[in-house]
Amino acid sequence: MLRVGYPAVFDSQLLSVMPEGLELIPLADGLDRTVDIDVWIPDPYSTRALRVWPHLRGVRLVLSLMAGTEWIPGTVGPHVTICNARGAHNISTAEWTLTAILAMLKYLPLYVDIQRSGDWRRRSEATRVYQQLTHDQRPFHPPVKLEELTGKTVMLVGHGSIGQDIESLLEPFHVEIVRVARSPRPQPLVHAVSELDRLLPLADVVVLILPLTAESKGLIGPRQFELMRQGALLVNAARGGIVQTDALVDALNAGKIRAALDVTDPEPLPIDHPLWHCPNLLITPHIGGSSPQFDARSLQIAADELRRYMRGEPLRNVVQAAT
Amino acid sequence: MLRVGYPAVFDSQLLSVMPEGLELIPLADGLDRTVDIDVWIPDPYSTRALRVWPHLRGVRLVLSLMAGTEWIPGTVGPHVTICNARGAHNISTAEWTLTAILAMLKYLPLYVDIQRSGDWRRRSEATRVYQQLTHDQRPFHPPVKLEELTGKTVMLVGHGSIGQDIESLLEPFHVEIVRVARSPRPQPLVHAVSELDRLLPLADVVVLILPLTAESKGLIGPRQFELMRQGALLVNAARGGIVQTDALVDALNAGKIRAALDVTDPEPLPIDHPLWHCPNLLITPHIGGSSPQFDARSLQIAADELRRYMRGEPLRNVVQAAT
Repeated sequence: MLRVGYPAVFDSQLLSVMPEGLELIPLADGLDRTVDIDVWIPDPYSTRALRVWPHLRGVRLVLSLMAGTEWIPGTVGPHVTICNARGAHNISTAEWTLTAILAMLKYLPLYVDIQRSGDWRRRSEATRVYQQLTHDQRPFHPPVKLEELTGKTVMLVGHGSIGQDIESLLEPFHVEIVRVARSPRPQPLVHAVSELDRLLPLADVVVLILPLTAESKGLIGPRQFELMRQGALLVNAARGGIVQTDALVDALNAGKIRAALDVTDPEPLPIDHPLWHCPNLLITPHIGGSSPQFDARSLQIAADELRRYMRGEPLRNVVQAAT
Repeated sequence: MLRVGYPAVFDSQLLSVMPEGLELIPLADGLDRTVDIDVWIPDPYSTRALRVWPHLRGVRLVLSLMAGTEWIPGTVGPHVTICNARGAHNISTAEWTLTAILAMLKYLPLYVDIQRSGDWRRRSEATRVYQQLTHDQRPFHPPVKLEELTGKTVMLVGHGSIGQDIESLLEPFHVEIVRVARSPRPQPLVHAVSELDRLLPLADVVVLILPLTAESKGLIGPRQFELMRQGALLVNAARGGIVQTDALVDALNAGKIRAALDVTDPEPLPIDHPLWHCPNLLITPHIGGSSPQFDARSLQIAADELRRYMRGEPLRNVVQAAT
């Protein structure tokens, strides 16, 4: 019988998605004896998982509950197959992205400040924010107090499964979508990253949802901020290192762009970092992938992978094949 | 030639949507002589419009640029036809509503506070907010830092054109929609307001988007808050008077529900009103209908109405027919 070790902290109800015919072995955080297992589902917190690992013997397959598995290959070595939980973060990350876009176009951080001050009359401040950001000085009657997403041009930099889910959420807003990714494709049209600079001036909103690689590191720098539209919104739902932080601070402080970031470089952002206090900026502390549904969803992905493993079928989310 | 008076403050470019064959007469705010016109497009600010009105002669048709026309019948009398700009607020109000729902499910006001404090570690506070609101004490790994809209049940109280536009924006989230309105209908199923109390316990999110009438005044009171789910979100995109403010303050302070309000009763909310400082609440100061596109959109509606008037066709948005 296949022996599967899992974090003892999990609610046992969640394990009901696992296939029949397994021996499920809870691995407590304070494990201090050797346990023989075939398959390891590590604790999502790598620090806890790393404490358990030295006590495990016989592991042939690791089923991570996370999308990111950076710490695992160096820990378990090359003779173990590693799968991640691709897709488990999609819904929450796509929802965070749409929330961030809408919140910035509606000036929600300003309105939260106004609410905290308890002064309804401060609503007129929104008009000044709009004019400063967009350089649109036309007289409006009544004055502008928010912007609309409908009809804007949104660039998606990255068009994997999360990028495609973001595009679905944007559909009812009738936005123009411009897609840029590592692999250009004809249908729907996805441009190569080499075309980024040519396309940037078209976008009202630029969403980063591509992996951090040697090519994407520092992709958005001074030149890219210069090419963006006055008042354009940069949304980073990917990794902090894709944006050059110094250039971002400069572009924000100059009033050239606005930004919404779930990720930063460095991360966590130190308490005295200048980015915290830039204007026209929303920072959330890397929470976009979180969800009350996450445990159940990632365990379901692991359970499906186990079913394939037991039947001898190819695994779906292999990030390292055993040598 | 039909003489149409319009607010002189308008950008003349905006008037290019008007039909040919009109005499367009700008009406300055400080107008001090009598002007003969057939059709009046009043300034969106009623205080300005009321200053101009005594100098106008011959008005047979008023084309308001706003959805609300409360001040007009008593001013111009019963022998003038009045049309409103129905639809001009739809996009911005529907977008505000989705923004408010998402912002509350992602705890954005908390994250704005965390950003202002510059302390990344405070992200753990979100878990406590989630547990207090939902009474969900399961151990989560990783802890919950936001919620998802996907899969939730959203009740729309009111199902006119804005309610339908809100429903369109919700479509990609695969939510369960429960519709309640004055006029029940079979397809799609819209329940009568008399069924509100029976249906309230089903909803995670309750959106108010119905007109304020004698029947809807105070519709949401102590009994309705009691019937709502623990931690349910009330979103008021309609009029403040539909909710009993004292009961709302109590329900928020008791931690029973959360709320997002673009409208309040009283409005503007006085600087020392207890509602400003209730927990789990987002207040925006009646800005949901604002938009940089508003002028152009409402003038387009007026221009279309003028075209029908010149051809002798029935007008579309009559709120008072001349006697």
